[in-house]
Amino acid sequence: MGSWRDKIRKTEPYIPGEQPKGSNIIKLNTNENPYPPSPKVKEAIESYDANNLRLYPDFVCSSLKSAIAHTYGVNENEIFLGNGSDEVLAFCFMTFFDSDKKVLFPDITYSFYDVWCRLYDIPYERVPLDDGFNIVPEDYFKENGGVVIANPNAPTGIYMELEALEEIIKRNGDSIVIIDEAYIDFGGISAAELIHKYDNLAVVQTFSKSGALAGIRVGYAMANPELIGAMEAVKNSFNSYTLDSLSQTIAEAAARDREYIKDCCGKIIKTREWTVAELKRLGFDTLPSLSNFIFTTNKNIEARDLFKYLREQNIIVRYFDKPRTEKYLRITIGTQKQMEALIEAIRRY
Amino acid sequence: MGSWRDKIRKTEPYIPGEQPKGSNIIKLNTNENPYPPSPKVKEAIESYDANNLRLYPDFVCSSLKSAIAHTYGVNENEIFLGNGSDEVLAFCFMTFFDSDKKVLFPDITYSFYDVWCRLYDIPYERVPLDDGFNIVPEDYFKENGGVVIANPNAPTGIYMELEALEEIIKRNGDSIVIIDEAYIDFGGISAAELIHKYDNLAVVQTFSKSGALAGIRVGYAMANPELIGAMEAVKNSFNSYTLDSLSQTIAEAAARDREYIKDCCGKIIKTREWTVAELKRLGFDTLPSLSNFIFTTNKNIEARDLFKYLREQNIIVRYFDKPRTEKYLRITIGTQKQMEALIEAIRRY
Repeated sequence: MGSWRDKIRKTEPYIPGEQPKGSNIIKLNTNENPYPPSPKVKEAIESYDANNLRLYPDFVCSSLKSAIAHTYGVNENEIFLGNGSDEVLAFCFMTFFDSDKKVLFPDITYSFYDVWCRLYDIPYERVPLDDGFNIVPEDYFKENGGVVIANPNAPTGIYMELEALEEIIKRNGDSIVIIDEAYIDFGGISAAELIHKYDNLAVVQTFSKSGALAGIRVGYAMANPELIGAMEAVKNSFNSYTLDSLSQTIAEAAARDREYIKDCCGKIIKTREWTVAELKRLGFDTLPSLSNFIFTTNKNIEARDLFKYLREQNIIVRYFDKPRTEKYLRITIGTQKQMEALIEAIRRY
Repeated sequence: MGSWRDKIRKTEPYIPGEQPKGSNIIKLNTNENPYPPSPKVKEAIESYDANNLRLYPDFVCSSLKSAIAHTYGVNENEIFLGNGSDEVLAFCFMTFFDSDKKVLFPDITYSFYDVWCRLYDIPYERVPLDDGFNIVPEDYFKENGGVVIANPNAPTGIYMELEALEEIIKRNGDSIVIIDEAYIDFGGISAAELIHKYDNLAVVQTFSKSGALAGIRVGYAMANPELIGAMEAVKNSFNSYTLDSLSQTIAEAAARDREYIKDCCGKIIKTREWTVAELKRLGFDTLPSLSNFIFTTNKNIEARDLFKYLREQNIIVRYFDKPRTEKYLRITIGTQKQMEALIEAIRRY
């Protein structure tokens, strides 16, 4: 008995960010939107016919695809939808990186990239950011099995201009370049339209951040129809119906209310600039962020200690205990009121 | 340019069952429940706070797990939740079948089993059913890398008694045995309580069929905490939040209204028995089904022709064009009225 243990897979568990319950907590650790989703989302839920749930979802997701296509000026067959951009990115990795050459991405970036590479046996190389935490385009001009760039990058928040990004895409005509734009709506310009210029480009976005819909798990990739078709084939051999009916309806309602998303992002950008200025007065250096979080340091304060102190004050931020990031805190931009409470708490510290 | 094609994965696409739109169609092809979900589901949706969607879902899913635990007399740490039982089964295969020995399952069974084996490079053997389409327990008493049994089996609908199933589990103490119980509520007895007796057993269920919630994609596995822990580790390295907030709330509402599910299944069972009796009068032989579909044949009729005829009458059933199944139709049990229309159409034919 018990030798089934030899047959099962042993995986190092990944620990997601803390999701505490309790209304007196200021949660600035997982880059959620502090504002609710569009009022159209509430309407869509209220008018949804529950009886419809007995049926399998529309696995083509045509209605939601049409809303996204309209936003970005792409075609429906240039869109792949998935259960959160994590699933979409995982399918991108599985589909696009099937060679024995190394996939390139920054040493400091979204922490799931190397996890997926290991899971799918994809060789990879973590390319160091420069001393200012910038991505150096020239580092991605060498032979590779693919390239992944988060723009803006996480946890730095630094945005790369489209010209520089386009140079990376252009110089890698024989590999797929994935641009992960989870945070693009907080001040950057999407590379989406470049998919009509470069057939080796895939742009990934999500409704979780600017759409304030982390709870429904909808992400998407935009790329030429051949790449999207290859992704669909991989997905359909795994699970045809990853996106449920209600989530499709909700995401569509949000996608069609682009004005609300813009307003919401505008408020967050304003609060971000205010927060950065206040932190500067308190002696903090903050990397230039075009996302809904900032990466900040203070040479007179141990980041780890400040993290613990804030936790005691019921303010949760994120601390990455790794060589190049251990002097920094990553702080999600909350409401103006929440950020005032944060600044006040740091001032007391 | 274009040599990125050498680096991407080529997969044979899987074509899911037809999902036609139009209210005059009688859809008996994908084993959906003809009745709506519990009224508690409607209430849960109506009282859901849309603002909550800005936050990531509870990735522990504790509230939904507690409802399922209560139904089956298991503990919360003995439950793994996923985005439909397809995702749950895929994670079971990925986690439990990591040896170079062959995984065994019937030659005629759920069509995704061999797809996942090929996707994850799992060696497998399709064990022939006997001439009456029964699973022969003794065939599973040999050395293997794991066993997968759908109970009731699909597309036959045939149920295996718990004693026979237990013998297979007991004789395979050094492999994991997965029992896929997607259709168990339509007359069978779940093996769930056996997880406390056998540490090599995983039982998989879904809200899609008896719960009438195919639209929200929630499935689960029940097994000992060590197996569940191994699955969680694999899942978390892929995507921590596969189950969205609203789906958790909806599935919980359904799970806590077990009486409604029982009533609903009772009606379907009654209609199934009526349909089988009527088909017999029309010269059909139907395999003994304890599920929400039947597998039926008529030696005087070409199944393929009847399938096409019914399609023209706006009645969609399922036809599997393979050697051992080409004489049969798989027909989902709809409402009594729908089945009366089906019988009437066949009578005319």
